[in-house]
Amino acid sequence: MRVVVKKFGGTSVGDISRIREAAKLVVRYRAQHPEERLVVVVSAMAGETNRLLALARSCSSNATARELDMIAATGEQVTIALMAMALTDLGAKAESLTGAQAGVITTEQFMGAQVERIDTARLESLLAEDIIPVVAGFQGLSESREITTLGRGGSDISAVALAAALEAAACYIYTDVEGVFSADPRICPDARLLRRISHEEMLELATLGAKVLHPRSVLFAMRYRVPLVTLSTFRSGPGTWIVNEGEIMEAPVVSGITHRSDEARITLSKVPGGLPDGLQRLGKVFADIGKAGIPVDMLTQNRGADGLLDLSFTVPDEHSSHCLELCQALVPEIGAEGAGIDRNIAKVSVVGVGIHAHADVASKIFKALASERIEVLMLSTSEIKISVVIPRKYAELAVRCLHDALVLAQLASGSSPQAEARAAVSH
Amino acid sequence: MRVVVKKFGGTSVGDISRIREAAKLVVRYRAQHPEERLVVVVSAMAGETNRLLALARSCSSNATARELDMIAATGEQVTIALMAMALTDLGAKAESLTGAQAGVITTEQFMGAQVERIDTARLESLLAEDIIPVVAGFQGLSESREITTLGRGGSDISAVALAAALEAAACYIYTDVEGVFSADPRICPDARLLRRISHEEMLELATLGAKVLHPRSVLFAMRYRVPLVTLSTFRSGPGTWIVNEGEIMEAPVVSGITHRSDEARITLSKVPGGLPDGLQRLGKVFADIGKAGIPVDMLTQNRGADGLLDLSFTVPDEHSSHCLELCQALVPEIGAEGAGIDRNIAKVSVVGVGIHAHADVASKIFKALASERIEVLMLSTSEIKISVVIPRKYAELAVRCLHDALVLAQLASGSSPQAEARAAVSH
Repeated sequence: MRVVVKKFGGTSVGDISRIREAAKLVVRYRAQHPEERLVVVVSAMAGETNRLLALARSCSSNATARELDMIAATGEQVTIALMAMALTDLGAKAESLTGAQAGVITTEQFMGAQVERIDTARLESLLAEDIIPVVAGFQGLSESREITTLGRGGSDISAVALAAALEAAACYIYTDVEGVFSADPRICPDARLLRRISHEEMLELATLGAKVLHPRSVLFAMRYRVPLVTLSTFRSGPGTWIVNEGEIMEAPVVSGITHRSDEARITLSKVPGGLPDGLQRLGKVFADIGKAGIPVDMLTQNRGADGLLDLSFTVPDEHSSHCLELCQALVPEIGAEGAGIDRNIAKVSVVGVGIHAHADVASKIFKALASERIEVLMLSTSEIKISVVIPRKYAELAVRCLHDALVLAQLASGSSPQAEARAAVSH
Repeated sequence: MRVVVKKFGGTSVGDISRIREAAKLVVRYRAQHPEERLVVVVSAMAGETNRLLALARSCSSNATARELDMIAATGEQVTIALMAMALTDLGAKAESLTGAQAGVITTEQFMGAQVERIDTARLESLLAEDIIPVVAGFQGLSESREITTLGRGGSDISAVALAAALEAAACYIYTDVEGVFSADPRICPDARLLRRISHEEMLELATLGAKVLHPRSVLFAMRYRVPLVTLSTFRSGPGTWIVNEGEIMEAPVVSGITHRSDEARITLSKVPGGLPDGLQRLGKVFADIGKAGIPVDMLTQNRGADGLLDLSFTVPDEHSSHCLELCQALVPEIGAEGAGIDRNIAKVSVVGVGIHAHADVASKIFKALASERIEVLMLSTSEIKISVVIPRKYAELAVRCLHDALVLAQLASGSSPQAEARAAVSH
């Protein structure tokens, strides 16, 4: 029995006519794939969760997470009933199931529960009768029978967890976006829809994919080896398959270019960095920043001829003033010359599973940016990513020129990720 | 551990400020009765169930009862969370429970399930910790873990069932009405709030109490000997206690006067009624009426000197034309003279557990009506009720004069139901 999970987000079930459209899509797919058994997962209707939480806040400003989950969980419960009705009206056999009824067992961490396991007995008996279970996403039941919700991205997590438990052939995530693109189409008109990328790339492309897939569900899919597809409810198209790295044959070097412009760079200059004192001092810096709850992103250091370190790192804009204060306060203690901030930066990242095998990517990045006279303030690399920090005003220009030089050039050279993906995507 | 159940209907939890008021009422009661343990049962916010069912109808005109229950059950789930928050804000310990979590096990008859039993383990462990369980009325779970609703009056049924299962000392039903009155206060300004009546009387007073208590919950309370109290959420007052007949010491002869003006009287005249043919013919009449789904209420017959029967009975207005047609069609077959209808009738009933022991009630009724020149068209008696059918235009006048002659006269004579009830009501 080949099982496929199809999950529809809030905008895809935003009103009755959209629920009917989504139901039609399911029934059409079913007619085309009669050998498959479908599980449908739905979110609350767009805006409904916020309406319910606002109602709760208007009742109490101190509501416990337990009671907020109790009220929020009703959002999906409404949608499952409506979707089951819409499917039944189209001649399909369908039955709604709350998270609890679907056997989604979670931890008891309200508003952010983790899926522990799925008791699939009831789902399997429905599937055996060729009935489509319509499952409430975002919610589950703890061992002590408390209603929980899974926190941000929760409905995607539900869909992936169900797919994993049912050993589904694929988990389709329907949204209002056609899939993952090689760059943000709003700033890069040449951006291509990616047909096939790895889970790891998807995580790095989070800023491109944030509207598409929550990183938590990608991690979950990666761990349980669930093939994910993200595609549009409203426009037909192949979408983007997110699969295990090993399944991508002849992976393209670069999949996409992503950028963010909401970070600032903090620099501690001329820190005495000798061993062991110097490193202990730096340890002290990051201990204080960590204690203040400030997440540090990129971190680079440069040791000058004088043996002193220039240390730079990026932090989210909203934490940057606080972080600068902390660093300035530490300047005397660590013996640095000073602490400074640059708020006018952007981070541009080139992402691709082929990067680690192709040493020339960094050189191409430098050349492309140089041709536009864009200065590189920081650079860091990982297995599947090279990130550069540049002046903020050049962010969009940098995305376009890197996309031209790395993604489009690759297509021109015949090593087309699209062409390859197309061959494999009949999946 | 003395347990008390308090149930708030839809108007009592109609918006956030009313939920807060109801919560205050609970917390105030708790402070006055520190030895008691409370269970709160709530309905959906007024209008919410209708909103949800309209949403369902806008999605499908063929929705199954199962899916309608799935969507309708969310109404109460929202209220329990809000009520638990409001109670917590006032310093009480409270936790919301869906019907399923509260252990309300029902049959699987969707939209009209019967409560089969209550697994009280979770409720009892909350009560032992002095936490107020806030339970969703109207809903339960079947053995196969389907979400069900109990149909009309369902939240009252939930409250009474919980009270029975927990062997509660009382079940308080809060509505927007102060209790049960000795007559409809809108037509009888002298009507008194009844302090204590039997379950049987409450059933007979249904037209007075319809807004207060659904007959199904009264029957349930009677069967499980649960003392019910019905009172107002908005005005303080003692309310009306509905208890077992045996618990009413020195019961007043008459508790209340009720009337209805939505029935018509049908008469079959001069039916040959000899044994056995005549009775078989009458059996045929009522078999046909029953098959047509027409409920017959009062039924009287009179045998004339000629040995022929005049047979009269009342049926609801909306069925009267159909019923008349049926009877006219039967006239030749049963050999009657004709079938006629009188739509201008009203039925006035005098209710009281003392009636069966006091033979003079009927005589007082005739005297009182005669003094107002009101003709009695039909009369029937039961253990605790005497009903008369009179011309409809006199309905309100008849209620007032019977109230004067039977309820107020009783008070004047010192056999005051109120005074007695007051003594016993510290319950």
